Amino acid sequence: MNKDTVLSVTKPFDIRFSEVDSMGVVWHGNYAKYFEDAREEFGRKYDLGYLMMYDEGFFEPIVELSFKYKQPMIYGMKPEITMVYRPCEAAKIIFDYEIRDAATKEVFVTGHSVQVFMDKNTHQLVLTNPKFYEAWRKRWEVDV
Amino acid sequence: MNKDTVLSVTKPFDIRFSEVDSMGVVWHGNYAKYFEDAREEFGRKYDLGYLMMYDEGFFEPIVELSFKYKQPMIYGMKPEITMVYRPCEAAKIIFDYEIRDAATKEVFVTGHSVQVFMDKNTHQLVLTNPKFYEAWRKRWEVDV
Amino acid sequence: MNKDTVLSVTKPFDIRFSEVDSMGVVWHGNYAKYFEDAREEFGRKYDLGYLMMYDEGFFEPIVELSFKYKQPMIYGMKPEITMVYRPCEAAKIIFDYEIRDAATKEVFVTGHSVQVFMDKNTHQLVLTNPKFYEAWRKRWEVDV
Amino acid sequence: MNKDTVLSVTKPFDIRFSEVDSMGVVWHGNYAKYFEDAREEFGRKYDLGYLMMYDEGFFEPIVELSFKYKQPMIYGMKPEITMVYRPCEAAKIIFDYEIRDAATKEVFVTGHSVQVFMDKNTHQLVLTNPKFYEAWRKRWEVDV
Repeated sequence: MNKDTVLSVTKPFDIRFSEVDSMGVVWHGNYAKYFEDAREEFGRKYDLGYLMMYDEGFFEPIVELSFKYKQPMIYGMKPEITMVYRPCEAAKIIFDYEIRDAATKEVFVTGHSVQVFMDKNTHQLVLTNPKFYEAWRKRWEVDV
Repeated sequence: MNKDTVLSVTKPFDIRFSEVDSMGVVWHGNYAKYFEDAREEFGRKYDLGYLMMYDEGFFEPIVELSFKYKQPMIYGMKPEITMVYRPCEAAKIIFDYEIRDAATKEVFVTGHSVQVFMDKNTHQLVLTNPKFYEAWRKRWEVDV
Repeated sequence: MNKDTVLSVTKPFDIRFSEVDSMGVVWHGNYAKYFEDAREEFGRKYDLGYLMMYDEGFFEPIVELSFKYKQPMIYGMKPEITMVYRPCEAAKIIFDYEIRDAATKEVFVTGHSVQVFMDKNTHQLVLTNPKFYEAWRKRWEVDV
Repeated sequence: MNKDTVLSVTKPFDIRFSEVDSMGVVWHGNYAKYFEDAREEFGRKYDLGYLMMYDEGFFEPIVELSFKYKQPMIYGMKPEITMVYRPCEAAKIIFDYEIRDAATKEVFVTGHSVQVFMDKNTHQLVLTNPKFYEAWRKRWEVDV
């Protein structure tokens, strides 16, 4: 592991009209979509896409998800999301998220997610890191 | 076919806070969910559920869907949906919908949907009515 | 405060077809809707609805939300949600949630939410409990 | 009006994982979001945004919406949407939509939407074109 390695993606995004609630702010439940968009972007950037992992024999359900809402997001704002990979020993994929104003950097939301590996055939939890994931962690120098 | 037979369901429902947009009304795209809820209710009432049809070897994608919005729905209102089966000769399932105020009967939305049969294994369109569906239509006297 | 008082709601619900993802399980982001449905049910049962609080001059945005996913929920299952009010001194509304199989009681998801009070006119955070909320807490014997 | 004028936008987009249903295809109700995304893009390109029109004193609810689903969209596909402004005499905004594969141009969905003008203060339907909209139609040579 290279201690200086930080795997992350940052992505600007638009707020959909349908994501805003009657208080004029993004409905809190919609942030799960922004987090997922960031995971997809990460998958594309670092070769860790859902389809690829599925081909390897695994899917990665979310087992933990949290949000802290600092400021509401209003329709017309220009937010960006940053997602950082948090290295860990266990057979888990952990990400930390921050959504902020792309210009002022004011923070709207922070959060984290934890995913585990499930065998796609048996639908059983996998307790040790799959080989493809071990290889992926070495390649990007984030093996613990 | 018994010309007097009308298969229909009527179901009151609650508007979710998350379904209301920043104009204070139910976002137009959410009505597709209410229509689907009605189809599920119909499936339970008349033994035509998705899972049952899947077991028979078919799924039934929507190929046509329309909405006419007469009056907006506001959070706190008490709407109900009525869905009516429209008999037809073709290998299609057609429904007409109406959402109205459960008390005043003021109409909020009308619409219709058309579904076709796809073979679950080949993912090919099925051009004649599947046997289970023919039997179902006889049972409920809606065979054309 | 009566230490034995527990304010809670339990409500069975149906899984919508549109809430299930391509892995055949309820998409994790949709649980925020179930939690919100429980809050609405609670509001009806204990006279603490959004509209009432808005009339009192406040809205109550979510500032914290978490989920722990124990088991996936599959289309056709019959789940129920229980939400428990967690008394606290601060000007916050805190709830704990559990979604489980209505028959077997197997737990699918747990979580919590924290809401604060905002003045509906100034959109400023309110640091002490609004009077209507103090009265509400006394009435239900959950004042700390 | 310049008969050759066609106002349109074309925009590639990504399918969200959460938009795919248990049949592995985009859930039909989600296309309303893609249509709305196209309207927003159009608003940005041709200066006809919701916020601008709201400042002018109007909002534009959808009163009619239709979809014809030709082929399902699968997670991982690269679709694009084209939306074309359909000039008309009445005080309405009408758009036609087509979603297709960005590479092969295979058509997935077509549809249309009709919007009317409501006075933002009275919430009454406006039966003649608002002045700002008349000016907008002249500017873009789509006045009928």
